[in-house]
Amino acid sequence: MAKPQPSRALFADLYELTMAQAYWQHGHNAPATFSLAFRNLPPDRGYAVFAGLEDALDHLETLRFTGADVAYLRSLGLFDTAFLDWLPSLRFTGGVRAMAEGDLVFAEEPVVEVTAPVIESQLVETAVMNAIGLQTMLATKAARVVYAAQGRAVVEFAARRTQGDEAADRLARVSYLVGFGGTSNVLAAARYGIPPVGTMAHSFISSFPTEAEAFDIYADSFPDTSTLLVDTYDTVEGVRRAAETGKRLRDAGHALRAIRLDSGDLLALSIASRRVLDEAGLTDVRVLASGGLDEFDIEALLAAGAPIDGFGIGTKLGVSADAPWMDWAYKLSEYDGAPVLKLSEGKASLAGRKQVYRKTDGDGMYAADTLALEDEQLPEGDGAPLLTSVMRGGQRTGPTPTLPELRERFAANFARLPDRYKTLRSPDVYPVHHTWALEETQWRATQNTLARQQR
Amino acid sequence: MAKPQPSRALFADLYELTMAQAYWQHGHNAPATFSLAFRNLPPDRGYAVFAGLEDALDHLETLRFTGADVAYLRSLGLFDTAFLDWLPSLRFTGGVRAMAEGDLVFAEEPVVEVTAPVIESQLVETAVMNAIGLQTMLATKAARVVYAAQGRAVVEFAARRTQGDEAADRLARVSYLVGFGGTSNVLAAARYGIPPVGTMAHSFISSFPTEAEAFDIYADSFPDTSTLLVDTYDTVEGVRRAAETGKRLRDAGHALRAIRLDSGDLLALSIASRRVLDEAGLTDVRVLASGGLDEFDIEALLAAGAPIDGFGIGTKLGVSADAPWMDWAYKLSEYDGAPVLKLSEGKASLAGRKQVYRKTDGDGMYAADTLALEDEQLPEGDGAPLLTSVMRGGQRTGPTPTLPELRERFAANFARLPDRYKTLRSPDVYPVHHTWALEETQWRATQNTLARQQR
Repeated sequence: MAKPQPSRALFADLYELTMAQAYWQHGHNAPATFSLAFRNLPPDRGYAVFAGLEDALDHLETLRFTGADVAYLRSLGLFDTAFLDWLPSLRFTGGVRAMAEGDLVFAEEPVVEVTAPVIESQLVETAVMNAIGLQTMLATKAARVVYAAQGRAVVEFAARRTQGDEAADRLARVSYLVGFGGTSNVLAAARYGIPPVGTMAHSFISSFPTEAEAFDIYADSFPDTSTLLVDTYDTVEGVRRAAETGKRLRDAGHALRAIRLDSGDLLALSIASRRVLDEAGLTDVRVLASGGLDEFDIEALLAAGAPIDGFGIGTKLGVSADAPWMDWAYKLSEYDGAPVLKLSEGKASLAGRKQVYRKTDGDGMYAADTLALEDEQLPEGDGAPLLTSVMRGGQRTGPTPTLPELRERFAANFARLPDRYKTLRSPDVYPVHHTWALEETQWRATQNTLARQQR
Repeated sequence: MAKPQPSRALFADLYELTMAQAYWQHGHNAPATFSLAFRNLPPDRGYAVFAGLEDALDHLETLRFTGADVAYLRSLGLFDTAFLDWLPSLRFTGGVRAMAEGDLVFAEEPVVEVTAPVIESQLVETAVMNAIGLQTMLATKAARVVYAAQGRAVVEFAARRTQGDEAADRLARVSYLVGFGGTSNVLAAARYGIPPVGTMAHSFISSFPTEAEAFDIYADSFPDTSTLLVDTYDTVEGVRRAAETGKRLRDAGHALRAIRLDSGDLLALSIASRRVLDEAGLTDVRVLASGGLDEFDIEALLAAGAPIDGFGIGTKLGVSADAPWMDWAYKLSEYDGAPVLKLSEGKASLAGRKQVYRKTDGDGMYAADTLALEDEQLPEGDGAPLLTSVMRGGQRTGPTPTLPELRERFAANFARLPDRYKTLRSPDVYPVHHTWALEETQWRATQNTLARQQR
């Protein structure tokens, strides 16, 4: 019989469990609020796109330690027996206030506040940070790509290059959320109802004696949905051969969909390809480009007038290559009703349970955010609060939004962010103000904390 | 009843499946060999550490399309009915030759060659590339960290910051493979039998009225295994308080294990901490450092003489921050017995089934590699072949090596690589020669390919 496998409850840093034991043994388990926020935006980013909430909530709702988990922990000889005997009864019983997936978020703004007895709210740190960290980073990168493409089609081709297939799965989800047209990842497409997209590989071409034969064979199998990859040998020759196949398809009442360029000087080649296709009367056949592209490349190609109708974006999107991590912190901000903080050099945290308000200008564009304490009453002009209750007593408070709903939500949000914050390089810094009450709480908590240490 | 979920067989780019249909409909399914290699090492890398083979082989051994998979594909209206009816009978029936996990690998060297009817060998591209790409990248980064630490303990703290929890899991595995002492990731520790390690969080401290109380409470729960985090408020004060706790533990017959620094000037703070601990007679209490460190930071700290006994390495290891992807290609190199290639600008591939030989010098140190055709007979002085048969007829040829075995294997390999290839910045380029037969095959395949296109 196979040994029972440990469960996902163990996806936690060891210290979450040792601290849990110390809390438990000393009856130190008052309600504690943790705030999840990033300290700074990565380079060249003027905003982030919040995502990953549903995975985090799933973890909280399903958290329970199995017999196999406890048996493993017991084998370490590190934990107290009574604590381990208690552990299987642990559930996440707390509440979560959060932004909605697809909301824009800026530095220091909590995207999630988790309030629960400290053993519970502490224990889920690793899983919550990982889920939200991954998807927010990828959604942000993907939004930049969509913005750079200025309405042209962008599709996600990163499945082979993401950091694991879980990352590939979540990338497909969040890139669709921010406006991608589809994914090449069939599994993710199936799971999330995203349009699956694809062309053909160089290996297909090179497995046949000639490129022309490979094109015809593929087009025979997919007479109305073929995109032919033209750069296996000589690109412009490849486009001419694709045009021959395209004419044969047209004569038979079908249509070649597109050609794909995957190497070389994409500006020059796209111009040459467009000319070859147009001269063959194939003005409806689209020119797609791929091959290590990111938002900067797309911007440069379009600025130079490249006649490219769509982009397949892989590696650099898939790992958020220019900013592969964000500086998230999951910080205790309130314990047993009192605001608390840490003062570590360069990493001080903000005390107290918080709320974020987003103000719009006369044109409905986002103008500034206000970071406030949760229980403050702000004037109406300061805008709507972004954090809402999404979990109470360990259960979601409402139904999970669908991916199309989130996609619409993001599109509406993003349209309201002025371009100066969306620029790909050195965007302006979006203003986030702190209320007086927040600052005062911070000052008081700092003084109180320092004074207490001197006792 | 819940809708049946699609299976991992669908973790493929859509084009693998459309090409499969075109191959299938046209009876084009001769044995094809794909070679997986990276074109160039990432910046500052003089070697890579091959890893991820077992996940790739698992995918091949278990590949089968379920009813749910086929139902999904059918719903797309893209595929031929007869092809979809055939798909559930598909198995991976081929062979795999591969390096061993823990082998050092250089640019253009195949780590894996997959030979099977082209439908099968093509179809597994996405999953094979993702598994090996992720783990090789992470193993390489982790090996650099181990090298920089010069024998000091390094432990992996990245679980919250990796690109998904699958990446966290594989990172724990491969960082242990290359010499890390443990992981904070309890789930991965349980799965792989890796020592779980951990300290305490700032939130633990700030949930108590005073740092001193927090230290005592934690030490009471873990009197022989405590590492106290000292930088929540004022670091040197924190070390003094930790020393008080340490003295109390000692007086009670226990021992404080270590303190951890997580922010600020780690050189100055480690010197100050060591002094405080030594003056308290706590010379056995170790000083650990963490907080956004990578191999470059470790090297600089140790070069400056920082009295740090061990390092906790998180984010920048977890995403291989300075090189978050590698330029892998899975290229058709032989079809139906004939060498083939692509000639795409800047991305030409090497034709033919290959073997890699590694030569050692008189001291047993690695001197140079030779990239040859598989069936060449090389003189004995050219060293041992690195690719061996690991799968035949879709089944593994032998037992899976254990992680401790791979760890030993890597350590032995790594000791044989001269330091000039291990330097963290701008290492020398390890020589990889091509045999005359390989070059000639490449030349011939190029000429033949070009000639065929002109027909």
